[in-house]
Amino acid sequence: MSSGKGAPTITNSGDLEAGQRMFELCKELWPLNRSLTGPGNRETLQILAREFPEIEIFEVPSGVEAFDWNVPQEWSVNEAWIKGPAGEVIADFSVNNLHLVGYSSPVHARLSLEELQSFLHTLPAQPDAIPYVTSYYNQTWGFCISENQRQGLAPGTYEVLIDSKLFSGAMSYGEIFLPGENKSEVLLSTYICHPSMANNELSGIAVSLQLARDLKEMKQRENSYRVLFLPETIGAIYYLSQNLANLQENVIAGYVVTCVGDERGFSYVPSRKGDSYADKVAHYVLDGLKSEVTFYEWKDRQSDERQYSAPLVDLPVGSIMRSKYGSYPEYHTSLDTLGDVVTPAGLAGARNIYLEALRIIEANFKPLATTFCEPQLGKRGLYPNIGKKGVYEDIRVLRDLLSWSDGSISLLEIAQKSGHDFWALHESATLLLNEGLVQNNSVRT
Amino acid sequence: MSSGKGAPTITNSGDLEAGQRMFELCKELWPLNRSLTGPGNRETLQILAREFPEIEIFEVPSGVEAFDWNVPQEWSVNEAWIKGPAGEVIADFSVNNLHLVGYSSPVHARLSLEELQSFLHTLPAQPDAIPYVTSYYNQTWGFCISENQRQGLAPGTYEVLIDSKLFSGAMSYGEIFLPGENKSEVLLSTYICHPSMANNELSGIAVSLQLARDLKEMKQRENSYRVLFLPETIGAIYYLSQNLANLQENVIAGYVVTCVGDERGFSYVPSRKGDSYADKVAHYVLDGLKSEVTFYEWKDRQSDERQYSAPLVDLPVGSIMRSKYGSYPEYHTSLDTLGDVVTPAGLAGARNIYLEALRIIEANFKPLATTFCEPQLGKRGLYPNIGKKGVYEDIRVLRDLLSWSDGSISLLEIAQKSGHDFWALHESATLLLNEGLVQNNSVRT
Amino acid sequence: MSSGKGAPTITNSGDLEAGQRMFELCKELWPLNRSLTGPGNRETLQILAREFPEIEIFEVPSGVEAFDWNVPQEWSVNEAWIKGPAGEVIADFSVNNLHLVGYSSPVHARLSLEELQSFLHTLPAQPDAIPYVTSYYNQTWGFCISENQRQGLAPGTYEVLIDSKLFSGAMSYGEIFLPGENKSEVLLSTYICHPSMANNELSGIAVSLQLARDLKEMKQRENSYRVLFLPETIGAIYYLSQNLANLQENVIAGYVVTCVGDERGFSYVPSRKGDSYADKVAHYVLDGLKSEVTFYEWKDRQSDERQYSAPLVDLPVGSIMRSKYGSYPEYHTSLDTLGDVVTPAGLAGARNIYLEALRIIEANFKPLATTFCEPQLGKRGLYPNIGKKGVYEDIRVLRDLLSWSDGSISLLEIAQKSGHDFWALHESATLLLNEGLVQNNSVRT
Repeated sequence: MSSGKGAPTITNSGDLEAGQRMFELCKELWPLNRSLTGPGNRETLQILAREFPEIEIFEVPSGVEAFDWNVPQEWSVNEAWIKGPAGEVIADFSVNNLHLVGYSSPVHARLSLEELQSFLHTLPAQPDAIPYVTSYYNQTWGFCISENQRQGLAPGTYEVLIDSKLFSGAMSYGEIFLPGENKSEVLLSTYICHPSMANNELSGIAVSLQLARDLKEMKQRENSYRVLFLPETIGAIYYLSQNLANLQENVIAGYVVTCVGDERGFSYVPSRKGDSYADKVAHYVLDGLKSEVTFYEWKDRQSDERQYSAPLVDLPVGSIMRSKYGSYPEYHTSLDTLGDVVTPAGLAGARNIYLEALRIIEANFKPLATTFCEPQLGKRGLYPNIGKKGVYEDIRVLRDLLSWSDGSISLLEIAQKSGHDFWALHESATLLLNEGLVQNNSVRT
Repeated sequence: MSSGKGAPTITNSGDLEAGQRMFELCKELWPLNRSLTGPGNRETLQILAREFPEIEIFEVPSGVEAFDWNVPQEWSVNEAWIKGPAGEVIADFSVNNLHLVGYSSPVHARLSLEELQSFLHTLPAQPDAIPYVTSYYNQTWGFCISENQRQGLAPGTYEVLIDSKLFSGAMSYGEIFLPGENKSEVLLSTYICHPSMANNELSGIAVSLQLARDLKEMKQRENSYRVLFLPETIGAIYYLSQNLANLQENVIAGYVVTCVGDERGFSYVPSRKGDSYADKVAHYVLDGLKSEVTFYEWKDRQSDERQYSAPLVDLPVGSIMRSKYGSYPEYHTSLDTLGDVVTPAGLAGARNIYLEALRIIEANFKPLATTFCEPQLGKRGLYPNIGKKGVYEDIRVLRDLLSWSDGSISLLEIAQKSGHDFWALHESATLLLNEGLVQNNSVRT
Repeated sequence: MSSGKGAPTITNSGDLEAGQRMFELCKELWPLNRSLTGPGNRETLQILAREFPEIEIFEVPSGVEAFDWNVPQEWSVNEAWIKGPAGEVIADFSVNNLHLVGYSSPVHARLSLEELQSFLHTLPAQPDAIPYVTSYYNQTWGFCISENQRQGLAPGTYEVLIDSKLFSGAMSYGEIFLPGENKSEVLLSTYICHPSMANNELSGIAVSLQLARDLKEMKQRENSYRVLFLPETIGAIYYLSQNLANLQENVIAGYVVTCVGDERGFSYVPSRKGDSYADKVAHYVLDGLKSEVTFYEWKDRQSDERQYSAPLVDLPVGSIMRSKYGSYPEYHTSLDTLGDVVTPAGLAGARNIYLEALRIIEANFKPLATTFCEPQLGKRGLYPNIGKKGVYEDIRVLRDLLSWSDGSISLLEIAQKSGHDFWALHESATLLLNEGLVQNNSVRT
C-alpha cells in the first residue's frame, strides 16, 4: 500500500479486518430511516459517536436560512402501511423503509385501486425493485412497491395509513476535526440522508469513519482533516453558509466519499475546473491502478461536489468512487444491498485508495534546493565512488529530484515530469531533507 | 434559424424574399464601372442610399494622406475600345467593363498586332474568360480579352481608343451606423471597387445591406453596428486612419463580408491571432453546419482583414465566406456572374449564417450567480417536485448553466464546455435572469 | 549553408579544410593525460593558446570553495604499469593512459593474481575494450584492461607501480570572450578532463575552437560570445560560482559542445524546462535536417547542462550533439578513437550545424512595423505593378512578415507560424529595415 503503482487490493489482515469492521457498521446502520432530518439521522450519528467519540453533533432548527435555502421541517414516521381488500399487508414501512415516499405527510384513508394507483411508484424497467422516491419540498404522500407487485394488485378497497409528522424540529449533522501541524486542511464529506441503501449511502459513511480512524492513528499530521456526515445538498449548503470563509482559506483538497463499497472499477468526478489539487492527486492515484478507471467530467457531477465546487464557492473538491451513482443498475432501488452490492473487500479497496491519496497529500511538498548547481553527493556517501559506464543510473531518482527542486513544483508534479514513482521520489526527498540539500517551504500543494 | 445547430438553408418565404431582393440589387449594380474611385462608385452608393436612406456617403479628396498611403486620383471612363483591321470591334468597355485594365490612362493610337499584344491580357488556362486586371499605382493602359479571342486575331493594323481621365477628384465610401444600448460595436465591411463581378463584389454589398436592414428591424440592439461600403485596401486604410482609436476602444467583433453569393460550402479566414471573439463566434456558428466548412489560416487572408487585423491595428475582424476569393475558378474573371455563380439561395444562406452570428453576439453575456451554492430551484417551480431516478436530467441545461455562472465565461464558452446548444443555454439564462438567480454584468464577449 | 532547410553536409572546400584542421588538432591533443587537474590539462590549454592567442588561461588553487564543492587536489602521473609473473608488461600508462584509473594514488607492490583482481576493471560485454574509470573523490588506485586480457592472465606474482602525486596544486581552465555590439551573450562550453578519447572529449574541444575562429572572423557581432574549456562538473561549478550574476543577466542561449565528431545522426538534450531560446533555435536548425534527429529530454542530461540548467542557476543551455554520450557503443572506452569514430567530415558537419544556430541567433530579432495597416509597397517598388490573379503569391514572404511585425515575436517564431524559411524572412526583414518599414527594437530572442 505504500506504492501508488499497485492496485488497492486487500493485501494484509489489517485491511481485511478493516473491511469487515466497515461492513458490520453498515449492517448496524442499515435499518435506520435516514432522511434530510429526523430520528433515523440522530440514531445514525449516535452510533458514529459510539465508534468515534471525537465527533461533534449539531442540531440546526427548522427554518434557519442557509444561502438561498431554509432548513426543512423535521420528519418522523411512526407507522406506514397499505392493506389490501382482504386486509393483507401490501407494503409496510417497518419491513422496508423504501416503501414510503420520503417526507410523506400523514394520511389515513380508504381508496379504490384506481384511486390508489396515482400514489404508487414503481420501476417498470426493473420489475423486481422497489424504487427510492422523495418529495422534500412539495407536501404529498406515496408508496413505492415493485412493478411485479403492482401488476398483481386486485381490484377492491385499500386502506392506507401513514402515521408521520412534519414539524418544526431540527436537522442533524456530525463533524470530526483532526488538527494537524498546519492550518492547511483536507475535507471529506459524506451524506446521511438515504434510508436502507448500501452503496449509495452506507459505504460512504463507513469508509469516511474508517479514514477518520486511520488519520487519528497517524503519529503526526502535516494537514488538518475535517470529516463531515450531513444530509446531501441542504446539509452541505448549511455547512458552507456557516464556514465558507474558513474553508476557502484553508482547504487544499477534498472529496465527497460516496458509492465506495462495491467491487466494480473505480471512477472519478472532478471539481468544476478539473485541475484542482484534489483532481491531480486523484488522477495520480487512479492512474496507478492496473484495473480500468472511469474519469467523468464536471457535467457528470450529481452529489455534494455540486455545492463545494459551485461558482462563488469553488473549493477543490472532487469525488473518488467505485461505481458512480446513476451508473449501476441497483442505484436508488431496494437492490442496492449489503452483500450483493457492497462487500467487505469492496469497502477495503476504496479505503485503501483514499488512504493512498491522503498519504500523498500528507507527504507532498515543493522541494527547494539549498545549493547552486548540483551538490557534491560523493562527500555525503550518496554517490557511487567509482565513476564508470552506467553508474549514473543507480542514483537517477535522487538526481532527477534535485534537478527539479526549484521550489515551484511539488513531488507529485515531479513524479509526472520525471516518470518516477511518487514514493521513490519521497524517499529521496527525505534523504535530501535530512542532508540539508533541499528545504521544505511548506508549500504543500 | 434560431438554432446554431441547423444548416443555414432557406427555411421560409421571408428568407426566399430576402434572397430575391438581394439578387435584384446585384443585378442593378452589375453594369456600373466600380473601381477605387469614380462615377461607378458614386452611382453604386446612390442606389444603396435609395434602399437605405440612413447611409452616410463620404467623399475624400485625391491626395489626402492615410497612414503610409495617399488617396488616389479619380478615374473616369467615357469610352474604350479596340477595332480590328477590318474596323470590327474587338473589345468594347460599354459591352463589358472588364475589357479595360482598371485605371488605364487615355490613349488613341494605331498599332500593329505585334505592338498591340503587349497591351492585351488573357488567361491561357481559362481560354473563354476575360481576366480582371488593374494598374492602380503605375500609369499604363491595357485591354483584357479571352485567350480564344486573342488566338483568332488577324495580323493588321488595330485602332485603340481609351477616352479616360485621371484627375484630382475624390474617393467615395458609405457608412451605416446603427446605435445600440451599449458602445460595444460590431463592424461589417464590404468593398465597392470591382466592376462587373458577382461573387467577389456584388454579393458582399447585397448581403451587407440586407444585414443592415435586419439589424435596423431589431426591436432593441445591445451593441452598436457599423456597416462600411468602401474600396478595398485604400478605403479601409483611410477609414482606419480617421477612426482607429474609436474602433480599437469599441469593436468587439467584425467581419469582412465578401464572396457570399454562391451555393458552395462555407469558409472562414480568421483574424491574425485566430482567437478573437469574432473567430470564436464564427467557429461556433460554422461548426454547427451539417455541410463541410473550410477553415483557413491567417496566411490565407487576402482582403481587408489584412488592414483590420494588421499589427498596431489588431481589431477582432475575420471573414465568413462561401467560396473564398482565389479558391473558385471564376474568381477575378468574367465568369464570376449572377445566375451561374451567385444565386438568390446562395445569398440567402450567407445572410442567415451572418445573422446567426450577429444574434449570438447580441444574446451572449457572462452570467454571474447571485447565490452561493446552488439556488433552491424547487421553490421557484424550476425543479421537478418528486425526486426519482433520472429526474435530474430534465433540467440539465439549467443546472449546468448555473454551475458555470461565475462571471468569467460567456454563454458561448459555456456552450463549448458543456456541449449544450447556445440557444438552449440562452433560454435558461433568460429564465435565471428573470428569477434574479444570475446577473448580466454586461461583459458581452 | 545559408539555409536552415539544408542538411549540414560538407559543401565546399572551406568546410573540408576546417574539418581536416579540427581533426589534426584532435590528433595533437590525443596522447595528453587530461583529468580534472594536472599537467595534461595545462598542455592542452597551451596548444589551444598557440592556435587562438586570445584565450585566457586560469589556475584555481586546490581547496578553493565553489558552491557545495571544493577544487580537488592536483593529480600528476609520472609512470604506471603492471608487470606479470615473468616480468612482462601487462598494462602501461605510457602506452594508453586509459589503463590507469583516474586519480589513482601512488602504489608500489607485489600481489598475487587474486589480490590484483579487485584492482582491475574490465567490460565483460565489450571484451576488446579498455574501459574509462575514475575515482575522483575516494582515494584508491586501479588499472583498466580488456576483458580478453584479464581472461589470459596467468597465476603468479604481479608487480604494480603507480608513480603518481596528489597534491595541493591548481585546476586549469580556459576562456575565450569575443565582445559584440550588445551585452547579450551566447555561451559555448566544452570539457577538457578526459584522457585519450575522441568523440567524448576531443571533438568538443576542436569544434569549440573552430567556432571561436568562425565568430572572430565575423565582421560584426550583435551578441557577445563566451567559449569555455574546463573540466566537467567541478569546472563548470567553479566557473558559475564566480560568474553567476553576470551569466544570468546576459546569456540568451548556450550549448554544451560535446560528442560532435562522428558521422552518425544528430541529437539534442534540452535545457531543464525545454522551452528556452537555446532549445527553440536548436529545434529549428535540427528540424530542418533531412536526416533523422533524436530529441532527448531533460531526464537524459548527463553533462554540464546539469549545472547550467540547475535550479537556482537556470541558464538557457542545451546540447547539440551527434551521437550522445552513453548512446554509442564506443563511449567511455578505448574504442572511442580518431578515425574509427571521429572523422574530419563528422567534425565539419557538427561545426556547420552549430554555425547555423549561431548565425540564426545573430540574425534574429523582433520586427516592429512602423506604419499602421499595410504600408504601400508599390511606391517603393516592392509590389508588382499589375494586379492580376496570383500576383499576391510572389511577395508572400514579405507580406506575411509585415503582418506579424508587432514587436512581440521574433523572426524565428514568425518562421514557425508562417511556415516560411528563417533566411527568406530575414532577407525580407533586411529589405523592410532598409525601407524603414520595420524597426529592430534590439529584442533579440
